[in-house]
Amino acid sequence: MEETNLNQTIRCIVKLGGAAITCKNELEKINEENLDTVSSHLRQAMNLGSCSKQVMGMDWSKRDGVSDISSSLCDFGDQCQFNVDFSRFVVVHGAGSFGHFQASKSGVHKGGLNQPLVKAGFVATRISVTTLNLEIVRALAREGIPSIAMSPYSCGWSTSERNVASADLLGVAKAIDSGFIPVLHGDAVLDDRLGCTILSGDVIIRHLAEHLRPEYVVFLTDVSGVYDRPPTDPNAVLLREIAVDEDGKWSVVKPTPQSMNKQVEITVAAHDTTGGMVTKISEAAMIAKLGIDVYIVKAATSHSLRALRGELRHDIPDDWLGTVIRFSR
Amino acid sequence: MEETNLNQTIRCIVKLGGAAITCKNELEKINEENLDTVSSHLRQAMNLGSCSKQVMGMDWSKRDGVSDISSSLCDFGDQCQFNVDFSRFVVVHGAGSFGHFQASKSGVHKGGLNQPLVKAGFVATRISVTTLNLEIVRALAREGIPSIAMSPYSCGWSTSERNVASADLLGVAKAIDSGFIPVLHGDAVLDDRLGCTILSGDVIIRHLAEHLRPEYVVFLTDVSGVYDRPPTDPNAVLLREIAVDEDGKWSVVKPTPQSMNKQVEITVAAHDTTGGMVTKISEAAMIAKLGIDVYIVKAATSHSLRALRGELRHDIPDDWLGTVIRFSR
Repeated sequence: MEETNLNQTIRCIVKLGGAAITCKNELEKINEENLDTVSSHLRQAMNLGSCSKQVMGMDWSKRDGVSDISSSLCDFGDQCQFNVDFSRFVVVHGAGSFGHFQASKSGVHKGGLNQPLVKAGFVATRISVTTLNLEIVRALAREGIPSIAMSPYSCGWSTSERNVASADLLGVAKAIDSGFIPVLHGDAVLDDRLGCTILSGDVIIRHLAEHLRPEYVVFLTDVSGVYDRPPTDPNAVLLREIAVDEDGKWSVVKPTPQSMNKQVEITVAAHDTTGGMVTKISEAAMIAKLGIDVYIVKAATSHSLRALRGELRHDIPDDWLGTVIRFSR
Repeated sequence: MEETNLNQTIRCIVKLGGAAITCKNELEKINEENLDTVSSHLRQAMNLGSCSKQVMGMDWSKRDGVSDISSSLCDFGDQCQFNVDFSRFVVVHGAGSFGHFQASKSGVHKGGLNQPLVKAGFVATRISVTTLNLEIVRALAREGIPSIAMSPYSCGWSTSERNVASADLLGVAKAIDSGFIPVLHGDAVLDDRLGCTILSGDVIIRHLAEHLRPEYVVFLTDVSGVYDRPPTDPNAVLLREIAVDEDGKWSVVKPTPQSMNKQVEITVAAHDTTGGMVTKISEAAMIAKLGIDVYIVKAATSHSLRALRGELRHDIPDDWLGTVIRFSR
């Protein structure tokens, strides 16, 4: 794997969960309200300390076939009044109701690119996820965030039996050093054993975290964090703090095990079939093991804004709702 | 520059001229009719010899917010009846009425990424050109062409004083070897001297031709080929054959100079300020110098279909309308 030499460290890698920014049950439908709030939160988080300056909208394209360019292109006379310098973030988003249908219909995740249906599904999946990617880049750009699409397949990400085999970390680092916010996403990629597969946003995050070593990582989801059982269960308890040891094993620190149902492990495992939460915890645990704090929090809330701003780095206030996953020596 | 080892040679690199596939005078408007015809022509050209098989549509996404997935996802019961193997093409498109406004408003081509307006324009330009790119990928996919977006900036293309300094040729080769049709485009890129600039589709074509050595190159434009003066001039004469010598100098072979206005060179030079035709001829001449025939022809016509199918490789029929640029030893 190539070496990446960043000019400065990255502040945060943030995952926009597919379920948080799209309407899960409606094909290729963006949750516009959430996406707008998340974009605004990201701007506030990236823009700490320079709030007095104006935002320069960076999406100068037509929307829904109608040109509203004139409204975003106000008079740029004195450029100095505009802030376009943002702190160093990387954004990775999931697919939600984009890509999933196309991928599962054709079995892209199982490989076999020589089959017509898989090949067609690979193309269809990429069209769907890059459509979402473009909309997210545009939402961020409207907030004045200098966002740049970096679609993993085309940026040279590939896998070997579903593990990352190559990744253009240099391109990501170069974009960050040039003052841009790279926006990656879960994607269909080539796999040197299977032919092709799906590379999830969570795996991308872990890989980026390992190699770019951000100060912290935030997962924005559609629930308040990690629960001991499916959050739809009325008895579900939010796990506020999870500790990860050197072997990568994780245990619940808050609430204390004594105060909780003893069946935590079993119910979390059962949860996996419905929401992939164990996979998410495993990925998060591997990031935490590097000494990087991970926050899992509901998108578009005051709690997620605090996480994004890095306010939780030293101390988790009692009124903060979410899950922090940390390394404990 | 990295070495590229292709499994087999590439048949054709085709440029979809911005003016041919967009409505020049209307901001961000695609010429749908031309794009559909060009896509169909490309399918016919890539699909020689297997016309008996059915086409499998590969765009399974909603269009204009409406889902027509069911119509493209007919019963894929017997996959063998579908043809998804296409001959090895690379598509590069220009920007037309996408990107141009954003780039010129901000001066992205002049560099200076540290200026707020240039940085914003860089982001805005990429949003605009990737919007067009996505629509072209979708139009090709609807025709059953396994097209894959490979946006130059995110694929690691960069320049040094506007000359290509790095390019992900390996990624392009890998996509082709995996049976896909890469779709690149003119883009805003980083420049190690200027900060940033615009990398034109024509320069990308030349670079790809140099390193991937296709059998032939086709430029699809909005006029019938190269003329001795602006084609709007009623006395304009179509130059049917241009010969390029070892020094890269080019001369008109057909029609014979005797039959023509003697001021060819001057009028072509004057033409440059209006249409960049001299730049195009220079790029084409450099490709021809490699021994690769270049055809410049009007998009969405029977003439362009013949060029795409490779019918002109041995002999140019008298009824073919267009310009061929060839190396003459």
